[in-house]
Amino acid sequence: MISKNKLKELSVYKQQKRCDEDSVFVVEGVKMCDEILASNLPVHTICATNSWLSSHSVLPSSAEVFEIDDVMLERISGLKTPNEVWMLLDRNILYSSNITNPSGLTIALDHLQDPGNLGTIIRTADWFGIRHIVCSQGSVSCFNPKVIQSTMGGIFRTKIEYADLPAYLAQCNKPVFGALLNGEDIWQGQGLHIPPEGAVLVIGNESKGITPEVQNYVTHRVLIPNLGGTAESLNASVACAILMAEMLRK
Amino acid sequence: MISKNKLKELSVYKQQKRCDEDSVFVVEGVKMCDEILASNLPVHTICATNSWLSSHSVLPSSAEVFEIDDVMLERISGLKTPNEVWMLLDRNILYSSNITNPSGLTIALDHLQDPGNLGTIIRTADWFGIRHIVCSQGSVSCFNPKVIQSTMGGIFRTKIEYADLPAYLAQCNKPVFGALLNGEDIWQGQGLHIPPEGAVLVIGNESKGITPEVQNYVTHRVLIPNLGGTAESLNASVACAILMAEMLRK
Repeated sequence: MISKNKLKELSVYKQQKRCDEDSVFVVEGVKMCDEILASNLPVHTICATNSWLSSHSVLPSSAEVFEIDDVMLERISGLKTPNEVWMLLDRNILYSSNITNPSGLTIALDHLQDPGNLGTIIRTADWFGIRHIVCSQGSVSCFNPKVIQSTMGGIFRTKIEYADLPAYLAQCNKPVFGALLNGEDIWQGQGLHIPPEGAVLVIGNESKGITPEVQNYVTHRVLIPNLGGTAESLNASVACAILMAEMLRK
Repeated sequence: MISKNKLKELSVYKQQKRCDEDSVFVVEGVKMCDEILASNLPVHTICATNSWLSSHSVLPSSAEVFEIDDVMLERISGLKTPNEVWMLLDRNILYSSNITNPSGLTIALDHLQDPGNLGTIIRTADWFGIRHIVCSQGSVSCFNPKVIQSTMGGIFRTKIEYADLPAYLAQCNKPVFGALLNGEDIWQGQGLHIPPEGAVLVIGNESKGITPEVQNYVTHRVLIPNLGGTAESLNASVACAILMAEMLRK
């Protein structure tokens, strides 16, 4: 059983600020924690119920493991409905893994704010084999618990960088596609293709779109046709998914 | 100014149950309420700050209008950050409008649970001019405040029905496309086309997919290729968006 002091020590990680300070992140729930075990990632601390522990006989050797009950789990959990297992990981493990990006497509996010959107974009990228996402400074943190949960494990298979986005685009030497309301209809002309050197797809902020500084580096302005003529915009993760599919389709 | 009693009377609509009982729904915030005014929908009650009221000189004649301050707004608002205006509408206004569906595509949702997903699907449908969505019994209510807010006004331009989904599909006399993990690659073969009589696209529950009863009526099993080979599934609203785009592209 876990000590009172240890429980108190771990409960501070409900605050994102404390996770930032200690450069750790929390992952919760049966499904996401199984993803971590499947990815062979080193885990710092595992707190789990007796029933979870008895169905998981092999755990990472790196982990300090504590059995806890539902009341204790509630004390450390950030979920509305805590679900059997809570893990604490070091942030640096996400960057140390050796991820290649065979799709040739990099996603660049310009001041994306909503954690659900970032998580969904990572999940969709994972589905399509896109392994590289570059976020502008000022985008939502990929360590936000809502981001991590909504990636459904994709965060462990994707290289996510935070960078000065205009500077990154200036040196990338690839065509840069940007979703813009004054762009060219993606279903007209030659369509969207990824050349052998790869390409970057930029998605902008949920309400303001792509910043003027980043627009300067967009070589291909593209638009998903507004067939209804009534909606003002698409959700950012939906627009990103439709464009990913359009670029990767044969 | 609003009376104490009136404020108390309206604050009960923070509870979804009370909205269900009185067959009303709440819409909040500057952007969504502007959509309502633009759609010429009858509004039952408007509570707004002085600054909002002074920039909105024409209001629906149906509405009882109250000026309130930020503290009062917080008492009736279901938002984390209340935003100037709160409106109460009768549910029946959504069904009385005469909406046609020129895209020929109907979206059918089989036990969809997440309000954000339903809202995003309605928003994407609105973008693509898809005006008809049929939800199975047991799907999340389109009057859930999170659904309404995430449609970005699309809910006022889309006909949303709740029906016995197998019975609906049995009598629809249209090809029925269903997103299924054992479906045919959408980028192979002839692609997805909507015939002159129209088509139905079925999206299943977030974790369980399409129920066996509904699968019986799926005539075209389709799959968005899992190019990464690592992700288990796509988010339901993302899968729906990619398939909508694929069916509507020229």
